Amino acid sequence: MKLRAHNSAFCRACFLFFFQRRVGRAIDHEKMFDRSSRILVAVSGGKDSLALWDVLANEGYQTVGFHLALGIGGYSQRSRERCESFAEKHGLDLRVHSLADEKLAIPDIVSATRRPACSACGTIKRHYFDAAALELGCDVIATGHNLDDEAARLLGNVLHWQLPHLARQRPVLEPTHPRFVRKVKPLFRVTEYEAAIYAFLRGIDYVVDECPNAVGATQLVYKDMLNRLEAESPGSKLTFLQDFLQRAQPVLPAASADGPPQTCTQCGMPAFGDVCGYCRLVREAETKRERRLAAGAA
Amino acid sequence: MKLRAHNSAFCRACFLFFFQRRVGRAIDHEKMFDRSSRILVAVSGGKDSLALWDVLANEGYQTVGFHLALGIGGYSQRSRERCESFAEKHGLDLRVHSLADEKLAIPDIVSATRRPACSACGTIKRHYFDAAALELGCDVIATGHNLDDEAARLLGNVLHWQLPHLARQRPVLEPTHPRFVRKVKPLFRVTEYEAAIYAFLRGIDYVVDECPNAVGATQLVYKDMLNRLEAESPGSKLTFLQDFLQRAQPVLPAASADGPPQTCTQCGMPAFGDVCGYCRLVREAETKRERRLAAGAA
Repeated sequence: MKLRAHNSAFCRACFLFFFQRRVGRAIDHEKMFDRSSRILVAVSGGKDSLALWDVLANEGYQTVGFHLALGIGGYSQRSRERCESFAEKHGLDLRVHSLADEKLAIPDIVSATRRPACSACGTIKRHYFDAAALELGCDVIATGHNLDDEAARLLGNVLHWQLPHLARQRPVLEPTHPRFVRKVKPLFRVTEYEAAIYAFLRGIDYVVDECPNAVGATQLVYKDMLNRLEAESPGSKLTFLQDFLQRAQPVLPAASADGPPQTCTQCGMPAFGDVCGYCRLVREAETKRERRLAAGAA
Repeated sequence: MKLRAHNSAFCRACFLFFFQRRVGRAIDHEKMFDRSSRILVAVSGGKDSLALWDVLANEGYQTVGFHLALGIGGYSQRSRERCESFAEKHGLDLRVHSLADEKLAIPDIVSATRRPACSACGTIKRHYFDAAALELGCDVIATGHNLDDEAARLLGNVLHWQLPHLARQRPVLEPTHPRFVRKVKPLFRVTEYEAAIYAFLRGIDYVVDECPNAVGATQLVYKDMLNRLEAESPGSKLTFLQDFLQRAQPVLPAASADGPPQTCTQCGMPAFGDVCGYCRLVREAETKRERRLAAGAA
């Protein structure tokens, strides 16, 4: 394996060691969690989150896998199967929550509300991850965001100078409400490519296709721009993100003085305002669906 | 002329009006200069600087053109000719200074010092522009940097989180020393493409080729990345630069507390330290050249 950003080449055993050590160091250096923590690993069925779960389980961390079945046709079906077979093969604890069972499958929500799919999906995922961590008594939620994801998000925030988002973009987010737990991204220093090699070498069977809703997503344009740069000057993505975290973020103004969230009057989870974003979205979907049914009946 | 970033199309007359008005508004809005100012226009022979000179002269500003002949073979020869014929055609005052006459042609400096061409060239240009403004009694130096240049520079500064550079990247730089004058970039809101159309419609004969030293320059990678984004989402370059200037730069820490420059003991121009960057470069070139000659003779 040749890694131009590290100016190195690895055999199988060395690459696995290198990858695990990089993830382990990120966890320790950023004080994400320790052996006493109970970790909710949000698994999508893709290479990143399954590689993350694999590393954490191998290192002896206490994990519970949580998969949110999004109801996006065959893509979601395959994603769920990959999570289930991974958990079974390694004897790991996996909880699955299916949105379709609540009539909240992403395509239904999107067609009812006409909201952008990725934004609705993000709101829903955050809600269920937070709720699952609380219900399962976890101290921390770990997601599989890799360096490509984080660098692309940083580039997007910079291209629009989203200062509040820039102030919050960190590999560790401390909870701002008693019903929130810490959120961490242990893969934030490994690339998508490295995660794919790790998953391949470890024989992890993961969903290869992108989410069909992601086609044309701006995030992919940002990744493309950064890949163009990385090809010219290997290591640029890591420098971009690390220098931001070390040098720039500390001098940016702190996130807006919104204050801590209140409590949602509907679901009891944290909310900015009376009702949380998730409950607002669900209510909007229900109202619009009923209105359309009524119009159809008339 | 279709301009996707402005969601508009123009006929010849309207485009010229639109272009001139955009430049005029940048000048007025940023308080760059007024009718009483004496403006040194740094002209390279390319479309941007000649378009700038053309706009300023037409609007009745008092200008003196200044061309630094860099001595980069046929490219520099053609560049000089374009400036001279433009000045002659419009009855404008042009001063030319030739580096070759002082044995300071860029290729000679680069081969003597082994410094990167663009960095050496930048140091030399800054020195001669400053010195010419002083000698010719100008209040302000105007350069042809366009939106593509400025957005690419901003992207480069952001990708490396060069905070001191970010703090100084503005369309107007006030002088920090009595021998400096204000520096301004009146084209900072018009794209390279718009400047090329303007130059074409006004019948300006300009040098089309890029500087041969720019091949492979990182700046071109940044421009490429931004063009990729602009194609996907027209207007992104302008938003990126404008939001930075309006929202982000005001909250960044001010440029380092280096204090104002001192005076160079060699040439009398401003300097950080005893000797200015230009004189250091010239001395280095001379020393290394002599050493090599001595080695050759021995």
